[in-house]
Amino acid sequence: MNENERTPDLSQLGEFGLIDHLTGQFEIQHKSTIKAVGDDAAVLNHSGSDIVVTTDLLTEGIHFNLIYTPLKHLGYKAVAANLSDVYAMNCEPLQLVVSIAFSSKFSLEHIESIYEGIRMACKNYGVDMVGGDTSSSLTGLTLSITAIGRGEKGKITYRKGAGENDLICVSGDLGGAYIGLQLLEREKSIYLSNVQTQPKLEGYDYVLERQLKPEPRRDIVKLLQELNIVPTSMIDISDGLSSETIHITKQSNKGCRIYADKIPIHPETKRVAEELNIEPTVAALNGGEDYELLFTIDQKDYEKLKPVQSIRVIGHIIPPEEGRHLVLGDGSTTEIIALGWNTLRAEEDEEKRRI
Amino acid sequence: MNENERTPDLSQLGEFGLIDHLTGQFEIQHKSTIKAVGDDAAVLNHSGSDIVVTTDLLTEGIHFNLIYTPLKHLGYKAVAANLSDVYAMNCEPLQLVVSIAFSSKFSLEHIESIYEGIRMACKNYGVDMVGGDTSSSLTGLTLSITAIGRGEKGKITYRKGAGENDLICVSGDLGGAYIGLQLLEREKSIYLSNVQTQPKLEGYDYVLERQLKPEPRRDIVKLLQELNIVPTSMIDISDGLSSETIHITKQSNKGCRIYADKIPIHPETKRVAEELNIEPTVAALNGGEDYELLFTIDQKDYEKLKPVQSIRVIGHIIPPEEGRHLVLGDGSTTEIIALGWNTLRAEEDEEKRRI
Repeated sequence: MNENERTPDLSQLGEFGLIDHLTGQFEIQHKSTIKAVGDDAAVLNHSGSDIVVTTDLLTEGIHFNLIYTPLKHLGYKAVAANLSDVYAMNCEPLQLVVSIAFSSKFSLEHIESIYEGIRMACKNYGVDMVGGDTSSSLTGLTLSITAIGRGEKGKITYRKGAGENDLICVSGDLGGAYIGLQLLEREKSIYLSNVQTQPKLEGYDYVLERQLKPEPRRDIVKLLQELNIVPTSMIDISDGLSSETIHITKQSNKGCRIYADKIPIHPETKRVAEELNIEPTVAALNGGEDYELLFTIDQKDYEKLKPVQSIRVIGHIIPPEEGRHLVLGDGSTTEIIALGWNTLRAEEDEEKRRI
Repeated sequence: MNENERTPDLSQLGEFGLIDHLTGQFEIQHKSTIKAVGDDAAVLNHSGSDIVVTTDLLTEGIHFNLIYTPLKHLGYKAVAANLSDVYAMNCEPLQLVVSIAFSSKFSLEHIESIYEGIRMACKNYGVDMVGGDTSSSLTGLTLSITAIGRGEKGKITYRKGAGENDLICVSGDLGGAYIGLQLLEREKSIYLSNVQTQPKLEGYDYVLERQLKPEPRRDIVKLLQELNIVPTSMIDISDGLSSETIHITKQSNKGCRIYADKIPIHPETKRVAEELNIEPTVAALNGGEDYELLFTIDQKDYEKLKPVQSIRVIGHIIPPEEGRHLVLGDGSTTEIIALGWNTLRAEEDEEKRRI
């Protein structure tokens, strides 16, 4: 490998910049490729059937920490995160392939536990595991999952469709997964400083479950179908509300106003956030891994959604020149910027920690 | 993670045993899943269109060594190996998704080189890159590629269809990729013992190209279509002729006779094998990574294939109770056993080397 001084800095590009940079030169040759890079999943059309494909690659120490992640949960969560991308396209996941590479520190029982979690998730979400690759690695564990789903003609939902005055909706509640992670990190630090201590995890069930066993929102996709609502845009919240809001408004060429006090946050998330000295709204905006759905709907659909408890309207779409604003409780506004999960930055932190 | 004494030994299972073991408990729920685990690719049917999906996970130090693998070649080869699985189903690859995880030792230019190789392969084989995932890892480089292809109704070729008296055919020639690898390993050893030396790689073009820039056999799949031949079974040669022959005969519940002197081996492969004190037939049988196609045809199709230079008949299918035999030049026979690439074993070797 040649080192080269003029090489731009990877951390300047960031993950999304890097993807744009690397994939910009690829040409699309097939009519069956409806949508390539740039959404939660690619969209293909083979003989009239709309198919979505999405893939995730998870590496030990970056995406998961085996000190506090049970392997069964890891398998379950890896599938859940992947299916979440399919639901975010308003599609039904049907098949997936799973590849795994692991070093000699893993026994067969360890690998079985991961597959047990994968199997549980496949069963819960009605997805067939149809193939994959199994191999070794020099260090650590790597999981790669690719899911294939199908969408109804004309109902596949992209990031780009948000229109002016559309309402911005979010399912469930946010920030819990991040607070759960911070709690696990705290207990890890205590444990590492004294291996005789037992982690204190009682009374934290909700936030721990949000972190360790997230459930993608198939129910929301089904509900929207039953209410005959096709969102104008949709994305799943894997990197935090700020980052996903920026994706939708950027790709739709729009601005937005989001009201901080409308962002749904679970009481336990609030309580534990306070205990950890974290502002709950910050956790919701930048925490990520909640795997809720963020979507926009036409105002005419509002009446249909109004009685639904698990969906909250948190803002609306405005013209692009008006920007992206978070409206705080006192009426003041602040610009929405993405601080979310940046895996490249995560690595830098990891590097620093090792030095 | 809990250590557990009763855990079976991973190396006893081997790669294919492990896959069987891990995937045996998964239930198939969808009619659209035609074939799950156990062939070169999974087969799905969405609205009448037959789709194949295949995935590979490649990790640094196990599947490739960056000391002698240029990054552009790595990207190209990763795609080539993946497409080879699609061709082995008698299908046309159309789309692929690429995931990459890399540590901080890689610069943007390095990653660009990998994508340049991926882009070249996509262009050469008419495949659209439609998505993926980009992230970091604590150590080394991991590449995961999933390809999606389409087959003509009734012409998808599995491993399981070989019938008695069918002819066993192979495309191109075998053993070259393995000999190329051994040559690179030799030069690596010399270089590591004295970093002032320059590797001697002139006059070894063919075997090096077989190792570093393999080309999957799209041409053979097209040729078979033009000759109106549907193989009764097919597999690509990624693990060596022995291993692939066992896959086909096992899944077809048949035996076979393969004639050692019919196995096509390139003159340069023979010459360099001799130089390296390797028996060329052993390289062909157990070397792997040639990405040629091994397939069986009904005897009635023989006349059509006879004039084709790039396909050789190397044996025939016999009843299962008669076993799997390699017939040597002197007429004696030996049982075909798989010594091919076992990535789990490769890791053990690597472990030993590090200790």
